[in-house]
Parts: sequence; structure tokens; C-alpha cells
Amino acid sequence: MRIDGRKENELREIKIKRHYTKQSPGSVLIAAGDTIVLCTAAFIEKKPNWMPPEDHRGWLTAEYRMLPGSTSPRSSRSDRPDGRATEIQRLIGRSLRAVVDLERLGPRTLYLDCDVLQADGGTRTLSITGSYIAMMDAFESIRDHFPEGAIPVSDSVAAVSVGIVDGIPSLDLCYEEDFRAAVDMNLVMTGSGKFIEIQGTGEEATFSREELARLLELGEQGIQTLTELQKKALTD
Amino acid sequence: MRIDGRKENELREIKIKRHYTKQSPGSVLIAAGDTIVLCTAAFIEKKPNWMPPEDHRGWLTAEYRMLPGSTSPRSSRSDRPDGRATEIQRLIGRSLRAVVDLERLGPRTLYLDCDVLQADGGTRTLSITGSYIAMMDAFESIRDHFPEGAIPVSDSVAAVSVGIVDGIPSLDLCYEEDFRAAVDMNLVMTGSGKFIEIQGTGEEATFSREELARLLELGEQGIQTLTELQKKALTD
Amino acid sequence: MRIDGRKENELREIKIKRHYTKQSPGSVLIAAGDTIVLCTAAFIEKKPNWMPPEDHRGWLTAEYRMLPGSTSPRSSRSDRPDGRATEIQRLIGRSLRAVVDLERLGPRTLYLDCDVLQADGGTRTLSITGSYIAMMDAFESIRDHFPEGAIPVSDSVAAVSVGIVDGIPSLDLCYEEDFRAAVDMNLVMTGSGKFIEIQGTGEEATFSREELARLLELGEQGIQTLTELQKKALTD
Amino acid sequence: MRIDGRKENELREIKIKRHYTKQSPGSVLIAAGDTIVLCTAAFIEKKPNWMPPEDHRGWLTAEYRMLPGSTSPRSSRSDRPDGRATEIQRLIGRSLRAVVDLERLGPRTLYLDCDVLQADGGTRTLSITGSYIAMMDAFESIRDHFPEGAIPVSDSVAAVSVGIVDGIPSLDLCYEEDFRAAVDMNLVMTGSGKFIEIQGTGEEATFSREELARLLELGEQGIQTLTELQKKALTD
Amino acid sequence: MRIDGRKENELREIKIKRHYTKQSPGSVLIAAGDTIVLCTAAFIEKKPNWMPPEDHRGWLTAEYRMLPGSTSPRSSRSDRPDGRATEIQRLIGRSLRAVVDLERLGPRTLYLDCDVLQADGGTRTLSITGSYIAMMDAFESIRDHFPEGAIPVSDSVAAVSVGIVDGIPSLDLCYEEDFRAAVDMNLVMTGSGKFIEIQGTGEEATFSREELARLLELGEQGIQTLTELQKKALTD
Amino acid sequence: MRIDGRKENELREIKIKRHYTKQSPGSVLIAAGDTIVLCTAAFIEKKPNWMPPEDHRGWLTAEYRMLPGSTSPRSSRSDRPDGRATEIQRLIGRSLRAVVDLERLGPRTLYLDCDVLQADGGTRTLSITGSYIAMMDAFESIRDHFPEGAIPVSDSVAAVSVGIVDGIPSLDLCYEEDFRAAVDMNLVMTGSGKFIEIQGTGEEATFSREELARLLELGEQGIQTLTELQKKALTD
Repeated sequence: MRIDGRKENELREIKIKRHYTKQSPGSVLIAAGDTIVLCTAAFIEKKPNWMPPEDHRGWLTAEYRMLPGSTSPRSSRSDRPDGRATEIQRLIGRSLRAVVDLERLGPRTLYLDCDVLQADGGTRTLSITGSYIAMMDAFESIRDHFPEGAIPVSDSVAAVSVGIVDGIPSLDLCYEEDFRAAVDMNLVMTGSGKFIEIQGTGEEATFSREELARLLELGEQGIQTLTELQKKALTD
Repeated sequence: MRIDGRKENELREIKIKRHYTKQSPGSVLIAAGDTIVLCTAAFIEKKPNWMPPEDHRGWLTAEYRMLPGSTSPRSSRSDRPDGRATEIQRLIGRSLRAVVDLERLGPRTLYLDCDVLQADGGTRTLSITGSYIAMMDAFESIRDHFPEGAIPVSDSVAAVSVGIVDGIPSLDLCYEEDFRAAVDMNLVMTGSGKFIEIQGTGEEATFSREELARLLELGEQGIQTLTELQKKALTD
Repeated sequence: MRIDGRKENELREIKIKRHYTKQSPGSVLIAAGDTIVLCTAAFIEKKPNWMPPEDHRGWLTAEYRMLPGSTSPRSSRSDRPDGRATEIQRLIGRSLRAVVDLERLGPRTLYLDCDVLQADGGTRTLSITGSYIAMMDAFESIRDHFPEGAIPVSDSVAAVSVGIVDGIPSLDLCYEEDFRAAVDMNLVMTGSGKFIEIQGTGEEATFSREELARLLELGEQGIQTLTELQKKALTD
Repeated sequence: MRIDGRKENELREIKIKRHYTKQSPGSVLIAAGDTIVLCTAAFIEKKPNWMPPEDHRGWLTAEYRMLPGSTSPRSSRSDRPDGRATEIQRLIGRSLRAVVDLERLGPRTLYLDCDVLQADGGTRTLSITGSYIAMMDAFESIRDHFPEGAIPVSDSVAAVSVGIVDGIPSLDLCYEEDFRAAVDMNLVMTGSGKFIEIQGTGEEATFSREELARLLELGEQGIQTLTELQKKALTD
Repeated sequence: MRIDGRKENELREIKIKRHYTKQSPGSVLIAAGDTIVLCTAAFIEKKPNWMPPEDHRGWLTAEYRMLPGSTSPRSSRSDRPDGRATEIQRLIGRSLRAVVDLERLGPRTLYLDCDVLQADGGTRTLSITGSYIAMMDAFESIRDHFPEGAIPVSDSVAAVSVGIVDGIPSLDLCYEEDFRAAVDMNLVMTGSGKFIEIQGTGEEATFSREELARLLELGEQGIQTLTELQKKALTD
Repeated sequence: MRIDGRKENELREIKIKRHYTKQSPGSVLIAAGDTIVLCTAAFIEKKPNWMPPEDHRGWLTAEYRMLPGSTSPRSSRSDRPDGRATEIQRLIGRSLRAVVDLERLGPRTLYLDCDVLQADGGTRTLSITGSYIAMMDAFESIRDHFPEGAIPVSDSVAAVSVGIVDGIPSLDLCYEEDFRAAVDMNLVMTGSGKFIEIQGTGEEATFSREELARLLELGEQGIQTLTELQKKALTD
């Protein structure tokens, strides 16, 4: 039994609220236990400046921040994304670009903003899972910009953390578990079961091939459940 | 009749939700119509570095930001406060310091974080009104640090905007009214009816003594109502 | 009797020197007692980058800094305008834009630079009063750019501080008075007696309706005198 | 056959030059084909400021940059690490901390500086492989600071990239392969065959469980070879 | 005959006004023709942070900026010194440190602030010449801090520019001459005729040994005159 | 006899390695004793943004940094070039522009990057001497862009330091000599014996006309030798 009473292969309770605010075409409040992230998605009708004019693709980018009050004690607001936030927002962006056809997106930029309102572990993976839903709502709002209404998304995307806590491979770590984990791994997968990203790290520790296999298995199961919850949320 | 059907001396609907998140001792989600601000309050047991060691007072400071998805189109994220945010967060801090006895606060800093989740005018005044409640909850959480449980707050604080829209002095402007207003004024007052701050400006316009008098009258009425709503929220 | 022997409704001695330097079309050295500000005005034949190309108006902007040697002890030079300087330069810009027709200004930017050579209270209001004169000289230098020589300025602008010092409402506070003031208010008005901006604040204090009325009265008188001094300076 | 004539499980030619410069106790010039990195290691007898004084451990940190002339066309110099460099230097630091006992390191900081003199793919993994050698030389220089000369390093560390290029899983990608790769994975392992870090990403692509297995296999073989080359270099 | 009617070995008219402002112990307005610089000198009773505590010397540092209105067209304000300003303020600091005994200065920092009010060539050398006078006034204000009133200054310092304009070696170039000069040299010397600094540069040009000799001769004569003017100013 | 056994007019041993890396058209590793600098030269087919479009010249610019491991103890990597690096890179750029015809260079920018791999005094002058060779190799690579293959370089450039160490004027100071030197001078000259730049400074010291003459003499001799070594390297 884990700290919060879950089994090793059990996700925290997931709550998804679409259309949380009205100004963004996609706006999803997503919670996994006590972790709460607001994911908004919005288009800017302009490509990023770094893309050469002759490149006809669009772009999808993400920004990630934790609100100061999301942690206890309060975390200070930083002038620019620190190393950790930089890594996370690059991961969110890459993960969603894996299922978006940038060619068909056209000369626009899709921004995904993930602002953590409360942090209790797994903020980066929950940001990805929530961003997919916000992205779909945003695309829905401009569906008629695409020939025959075919939005340029090929699959769904969800993510989850796994780790080895007190020697036991476990799914969806809360903050206290994450803090004690010897190995920490984030998995991003498509709804059809393909990998998009694996990031496993043993900070001041190492892990064996067998441990890796068990972590992948747990993660794949968790992502299947998340994929179903995403589908359900999008059809409500 | 105004754009949204209100009378000239009518506030928007105010919703207040205390304890919105759990990590901060004070955490208030406050809405006025479509403007939504998350106000969190937290203590750091340390005075700001700029205060000389021989000064035994504590400090109260505020930070204000708009989330990128709070506006349409998306506003770009500025991690370091721009000119407008700097002005606003200084105003929030000054306003609440007016009712806090920094001497009795002791060697700690009270941070008030105001993050706008959705913007439809009046974000700075709503931030002040919500921050007061978050601050009271934060003080409640450390009430036993103070002799006889007397927290160092002398009065309540609320704020509202008033302005002259299409020639008509009006209370609590929404974004569209604010945009069209010739004169824009923010009032901060105590629960006992004293002024803390008046900021009236005629951007590319001017106003007469009579108009000033009418704006003050409208604002005072609005703040009385807000003060009652604050009391009610804090006793729920 | 006040610290420096003035009556409560008495301004400090005002000195105005036009054409102080030759490189800027407007260059005014203005002093109020020991506060000395150099206000220069210059046109750049280009609109700010943030203005959309389809907007045919020009712009007026201000920058405000205190030289390190303007205070005792020396104040350190800051990498970018701090919160206080940001607020002040935004105030100066708004105040002068209230009397300038940006449409008729055409596709150019008028810069007003206010550099405080010596600080003894009231630097922001003196900057506004001096900038108006520098602006008029700058417009004079390009008068023939405007049809029939009609420069796009509708009124004069002057500003003054008032405050409650040791319980007594007083006009034009020097630094020591400002430091001791419970309430501090800055008034910006046109030559024809209309308000442009009111900024009244009780830092760690509050004020009543009656006190507000007395402060407004003192300020209006002070601005009448400053308006006359501006006229005199511009006709010399 | 690959672009440069290698077999799919073949590393590029590795050259290692210890004591490349004299000012740093560890200084290794390492090349893999046309990728050349200068890795220097140096101790500062001071813990990082962010570590609380009551924490008696030391710290190991890394910095990574590409010289402007390391690429064609020249890449512009960014003194502050951009998103990519931030990710990479965090990875290098984590990887080497996995084998260093920070407790026994004592109150000092070990800096690893990886400056890419020429870039042709695989700069981050080569930086790790070279940094391990520079670190060992640096520890050697202060061996007598440790009881019985036992330096606080538990294992060796090496890293390599693998990827799927034109459908073929391949080891140690050069730039052109990396550019064309659908999947790109970096593996960091200890000399004894344990994983420290796995970072696999399908930028705008996905990969299956079988492909993952093959990539891991290739990487493990490559790291075994690199481990032997490190041993050989350190005993020369 | 030169542009402004001077002979090749003739300085512009020099005006020196001590005690220009009251807040700084040293405050000198110095002009050479149309170049005007305000030099203020002030002590901070603290050594710079970079000096190790065991170093018992004090420090002297300089800051140099051009006000935006000092040039036509207006130069944009750079709060952080650009490359040119960095060079100049380092030169000013070095030049004055050459005559100050930092040991006897004691644990304090002397700041010299040179703010150019109007620029017409030679701003850096005029800043040095004026700073020496401001420095002397500042030392005068704390003369009784030094045993037997012996201030730690060993000589006077003055500086001047020389250059080759249209083939003719000339003294004290104005902006137009400086712009056309093939060779530009700044000389800093003591009152007793020793060199402190020579900076000669042929931007996109070169110069011979003979030209160098003639420039040094002109500069030495100019500095002799400036030294006399400094003495006169300080005894007035 | 000097610290390292050299005579007062003797250079350190100079080693020059062309084509050190392959990505840049010019890439020179140059050493003077223990000082080692990597100089790379590359063209960007674009003028700097600050050059007005109607200016048809190209530009040459330099960047200079010291790698953290180039000194003992390690020097920290700075966010942006500090004052010293700014001065040095401006000097390198000016020196080489003196022999390049920017008109004939055409609308491109030549970047010279000088990265110090190991520092033992004289890094700035060695950077100039090495950059000239890297620049020539870079021009060689685009020789056919110029009519009749005439590259726009009019002369060679070399630089050396001289100084007064323990009272003795000496050539090409190593770090320890530089540290003890009362006077430090950098000379930049053309192959044909013309001066490009003289920078002599007596930090906390002064020097006489006779000392200046001797330093110039030593420097001229040193530069003659360096010029020959450059010629030899370029014809190898």
C-alpha cells in the first residue's frame, strides 16, 4: 500500500473540466489528486520569427510555469523560465507536435499554456494530458479553416510518471513519492500505443534492465486509462 | 442601460470562493462578471533584503500577472513585470499595507499573489478586494503567533473602478466600457469609509470637479457593497 | 510655519531656463527650491514599433531617471527603470498626451526626457511642468510642418504635489515634508482648470473626504500659479 | 551501409587526449569523428549558494556551450544558455552525480565545462564520456584530501546516441543522420551496465516497443566499447 | 584654420563651475565649447563586494552615460552601459586611480559619475578633467578623516584628445573633426607631466612614428593648459 | 633575465596551427608560451542590422571570451561579455578593420571569434595576431567572389604587449609579469610598420616620455618577428 492508499498500478483520481475560461478557444482545468493545472490553447495567426518565410509549415509551442502559491512554501516567481521549466515546456511542445501535421496547420502558431495552480507531483505529465484536450477544443473552434473539416491531428497524446519508490515500481507518483523515488521516468504515448518520449533518470542512482521493463509496463497501462478519460471528456 | 444591461451604479455579479487551493494558507478565487483572479497569500519567515536589520517591522508585498490565456487574443507571457504590472502590484501592496500594522507583523514577509485567470476589466481592483480575504485567511492560519490572538489588521480593504463612459459616470467598468471610457478612476477604501488611494486619469482627456465628485460618490457606494460581501465570505 | 518657512499654500521658488542645451529642440532646466530637473524634448520621425501600421496617429512618450549624484547618499544607477521610475515616466507621458492631438501629430514620436539633477521632493510633478515647456519649444521648431502652423496642443499642463504633513494639508512638499507626510497626492491639471490626473495615496494611512477636498483646493491654487509661470517663460 | 560507411552498430573513431591544457586539473580533448569537445574539470572550494549551510554534501555541476565556429554556418554566441544548452548541461550534471558520493566529496563544487570546438552530432553524449575522464583526473589531483586516498567515485559513466535513420536503428549518429532521424535516443550508463538516463524522443514521430528494444541493445554495446576506451585512456 | 576658427594647437573655451548641485560633496559642471559634462563625486562608506575582506584598500570607480537629449538626433537611453560607455568609464576610473593612494583611502568607495548633458566631441577626456576637480572637492569634504588632513591624492590629472584631421594633427577635436579624423588619440597625464594613459587608434587607417610624435607634443601642451585651469578653479 | 629565462626583447615561443577545425573557413590555433587561443573566422552573408540599407559596405566584427577552464582557479562564465571582454573584442575588430576595405568586402559580415583555451598573459594581442591568419584563410575560401580574385585586405596585422616589469621595459609579458607590471602597453601594427593602435596604461602608476620611447621600440621589434611568422604560416 502506498502513502495515499493506492495500489502500485493505480492512478490518482483524474478530474477534467473543459471550457474553464472563455477567452481561449481551448481551456481545460485538469487535476490528478492534488495536482491542478490550467491548460489553455490559442492560435496566433503568425508563424514564429525564427521560421524562414519559405517554410510553409505552422508551429506549436508550449509554455509552462508554476504559480507562486502552487507550492508550500511559496516558490518565488522567476524572471524567465528556469532550467526545469525550460525542459518541461520543450517536452510539452515536442510531445504534441508528434501528432500534429505542421504542414496542414498552415501559417499560424498554436500556443499551449500550462499554468500549475497547485503542485503535488506529476505536473509535467498532467500538463501534456490536459494540453491535448485544450488543443482539440482549440482546433474544433477553427475546424472550418481546414478542407472538409479535417483537423491536422493524427492521434491522441497522454503522459504519466512512473518511478521506483522504496524499491517498488509505482505509477503516477505524488510529490512525496517523487521526492523519495530513486528512479523517475516520464512516458508520453499516443492513444494507439506508440511511444513519443521516454525520459528516465536515476538522479544519484541507477537502474537495471528489468526495472526499466516493469516501469514501461506500468506506464503503458496508466496511459491507456488516461486515453479513455480524454475520449470521454471530449465527447461529453 | 449599459452594454451588459446594468444600471450605472450597479456592480457586476461577485463570486468569492475561499480555500481554492490547499498549498497556500490564503487562497481565494474571486470573480466580477467575467473577470476572474486567483489571489493567494503566504508568509515567508524572513524580511525583505532591502530592510535594514535594525528595522523590526515586517513587510507585505504583492505580485500581479495576467496568464497568457486570460485575454483574447493571447497575451504574451512576461515573466518580469512590464510597466503596467509594476504599477498594479505596487498599488495592491500599498493598499493592503494601509491596514496592516507592520510593527506587530514581526520579522516576516506576507506575499500576495494575484494571477488573473480571465480578464474583462477591473483586474487590479478585484485583485485588491480578493487579496484582503486571502490575507485574512493567511493571518487566521497563524493567529496564535500573535499575543491574545490579535492579528495586526485594523480594517478591511476593498477597491472598485469607476469611469465616464459615453459621457455617463458608471460603476465597475467591464473591458469594453473601460476601453471606451474617457476617464478611468480606481478607488481603494477601508471598510470604515476612509480613502486609501485615488487614481483618476483622463488618458487623452480631462475631467471637471463635478465629474470627479460624481465618480467618488459612485465608488463609495460600490465599495460599501463589496465590504459587505467580504464580511459575508469571511463568516461563511 | 513649515520647515523651510513657507506658508501651507505657498509654492517653492520656481526657476525656469529655456534652451539650456542646444542639441534638443526643447531643453528646459526647471527648479523648485532645491529640486532641479533637466527636461528635453525631441522628435524621432518614426512611430513606436508597437503601433500597428494602419494606425495613423503619432505618439508621445517620456523617460524619467534620477542621476546618481542627485541624492545624498548617492543612489545607485539601475540597469532598467525600477518600479518607481516606471510609474513616473508613464504618468508624465499620459499627462502630456492629454493635451496633444496624436492624430494631427502625424507619424512621429515625441520623446520627453526628464533627468533629475538634484532631488528634494516633487521631482515627478516638476518633470511634468517642465516637460510642457520643453514640448512647446520642440513643437515651435517644427511649426511649419503643420497646416497653417497650428501645432497640435490644445491646452497647457502643470502638476504639483500636496500632502498632509503633521496633520496640516500643505502645498508642494519638499523631501523632508514628503517623508513625514501621512498622505501624498499628485495633481495634474490643464491651464483651463480641468483635471488630467489625481493620484492620492495614504501609504500606511488613510484620509477622509474633507481632507481630500482641502488637498484638491490647495493643488488647484498651486497649479494656477505654475500655469502663469509657464506662460511667462514661454513669452520671454 | 551508412552515410560515412559505418555499419549500423559501429561507433565513430574515438580520440582522447588527456591534460590538453594545464590550468585545469582535468582537461580532456575528446573526439568522435568530426565532433570535438574540450572537457575541463576544476574544483571550487565552496558549495553552491543555494545549498543550505546545514547540508554537508558537496556538489557537481556542468556547463555546456558550443563555440560559434563549431558549426557551419557560424552559430551566434549565447552567453546565457538557451533552452537546448540548459537541458544538456543539466543532463551532464545529473549523469555524473549518479556515480559521485556527494557526502564524501565534502564542501566543494566540482565544475565540468564542456565546450564544443566542432559539432557533428552527439555533442551531449560525447561531453558526458569525456567529462568522466576529466573528472577522474581532477579527483586524482586531490586524492590525498580523501581518507586512505579513496576518491568518492563508485563507477565509470559513458553515454552514446542511438536513433532510427531511414528506418534503420543505428549507433552513434553523425549530424546528417541525426537530422534525418525519426527517433533519437541518448543513453547514459555506468561501466557496470546499469542505466543512469534514457532520453528517447520521436520529434514529429513515434516508435514502437520493438524499436525501443533494438535501440537499447545497440546503445548498450556502444557504451561497453566506450567504457573500455575510457579505461585505456586513464591508464595510459 | 579649423572648422570653428581655432588654430591646430588651440583648445576650445573651457568653463568650470564647482558646487553645481548640493547633494554630492563634489559636483562640477565642465564645458569645452559645446560639450558639457556634469561630474559628481561621492563616497560610499563600503568597499566593493568583489574586494576580498582581507584587502584593506578602498576603491575608486566611475560611471559614464550620455543623456538622451545630449545628441541630435536623440540617442536612445541605455541603462546598462554599452560597449563604448563601458570602455570610457573604465578609462576614467583607471586614470584617477593612478593618483589616488587606495591604501590611505581606507575602506570606502569613491564614485565618480560623469553624465554628458551635451555632446560635441571629447566627452571622455573632459569627463576626466572635470572628475579630478569633483574628486578634490569630495576629498576636501572629508579632509579631517585623514591623519594631519593629508588627502591621499599625489598629483592632478587632466586629459585631452588629439587627432589627424584632413592630414593635419590637431588638438581637442570637436564632433565634426572627430568624425572626419583618420587617427584619434586620447591622452591622460598628470600635472607633473607623466603619462597615465595613451589610447591612439586609426579606425580604418594607420599612422606613422612621426605623426605619433606630433600628436603627443600637441597633447602635452593642451594638458599643461588644462592643468592650470584646474588649479585656478580649485583656488577660486 | 626574466622569470621564464627570456631576454627583455624576446618573444615567447609562437606556435601556429591552421585549419584546426573544419566547420569554419578560417580556424587557427595559436600559442605564445602557455597562452592558447582558438581563432575562427566565418562569413555571414548579411550586414549587421545597425547599418543603414543605403550603406553598401560590409562589416567585420570580433567576439572574445575566455573558457572557464582557461584559468586557475576556474573563472566563472558570464552572462554577457564583461567590461574587459567588451574592450578586447572592440579592439580586435578595430585592428583588423584597419586593413580591410569594407567597401569591397560587400554586403556581408566577417566574424572573428577568439576563444581563449588557456590564459597566461597577452591573450588580446595573440587573438589579433591569430585572427589575421584565420581571416586570410576565410578570404581565401571566397577569393573567387572578388573581381580578379583580389581579396580586400591591404596589409597584415599583428600585435604584442610590452610593459615595465620591476623597472625593466620588456616584450611579450606572461601573466606573472603582467600582474607585476607598473605599465602595460598593447601595440597593434601593420606588416609595413605603421601603427594601428597604441594602448598604454599605468594602472596606479605613471610613465615618462623616455619609457614610452623604449616600449615602442621593443614592441616594433616584436611585431616584425610576428609578421614574419604569420607570412611563414600562411605559405606553409
